[in-house]
Amino acid sequence: MDGQGKEGGGGAGSECDVVGRAFVEYYYQTFDANRGALATLYGGTSVLSFEGHRVAGAEEIGLKLAQLPFEQCRHSICTIDCQPTPSFPGGILVFVSGNLQLAGEEHQLRFSQMFQLVPNEQGSFFVQNDIFRLNYG
Amino acid sequence: MDGQGKEGGGGAGSECDVVGRAFVEYYYQTFDANRGALATLYGGTSVLSFEGHRVAGAEEIGLKLAQLPFEQCRHSICTIDCQPTPSFPGGILVFVSGNLQLAGEEHQLRFSQMFQLVPNEQGSFFVQNDIFRLNYG
Repeated sequence: MDGQGKEGGGGAGSECDVVGRAFVEYYYQTFDANRGALATLYGGTSVLSFEGHRVAGAEEIGLKLAQLPFEQCRHSICTIDCQPTPSFPGGILVFVSGNLQLAGEEHQLRFSQMFQLVPNEQGSFFVQNDIFRLNYG
Repeated sequence: MDGQGKEGGGGAGSECDVVGRAFVEYYYQTFDANRGALATLYGGTSVLSFEGHRVAGAEEIGLKLAQLPFEQCRHSICTIDCQPTPSFPGGILVFVSGNLQLAGEEHQLRFSQMFQLVPNEQGSFFVQNDIFRLNYG
């Protein structure tokens, strides 16, 4: 995480930034260690767009992530921007840019990803929206 | 706009995709022709994070966009992903990747940007959230 990413919060101590950054750390650590476990972060209404392929619901999203055509990978995060969604109380938008190193590949892939986190009844958050894109060129 | 972008909608004919794509076309055409006019797309609660600098409210956002340190530019869009936000009726998330050509610069800059569009009382949409990042190699 670089200086730009920290600056990116526009107020790194706010609750929105604290939650968003903790989520990012947990999400990518889990993705790289055991991405099957990510399904528990999603709910019935969740939507994932992964490189233009859209799937909905925690179960389908978990399957999609488990079936991605690579085994080991490692994310490194460059920037994190968080924003609250005032019209939607408690919601948090998280925008991430970084690099993805696939096992056996020489070059890293640049990616961008956004999440909308929504409070659930248990006082935690789930991922309502998730959009992932590799940045070619 | 490439094929991936079209595929990215996951249902390019849905209302969400139609609105999101029309917004993208209007937004970047306006940005490139007269970006001072973009302020009217934002509202009092809007938040913009531009390369890590966060400003809030339509007036401040308009000033920020007007004062960006370049004159002419041209956006070309590579991918567009749109998702509805079921927990927030009528809201639309739009995730864009593309290239930005600044006047007098040899190389294009790769960028990613996301918007959350929210219905207003006039039956149209305003930009509640806007996060922009250049994608450095």
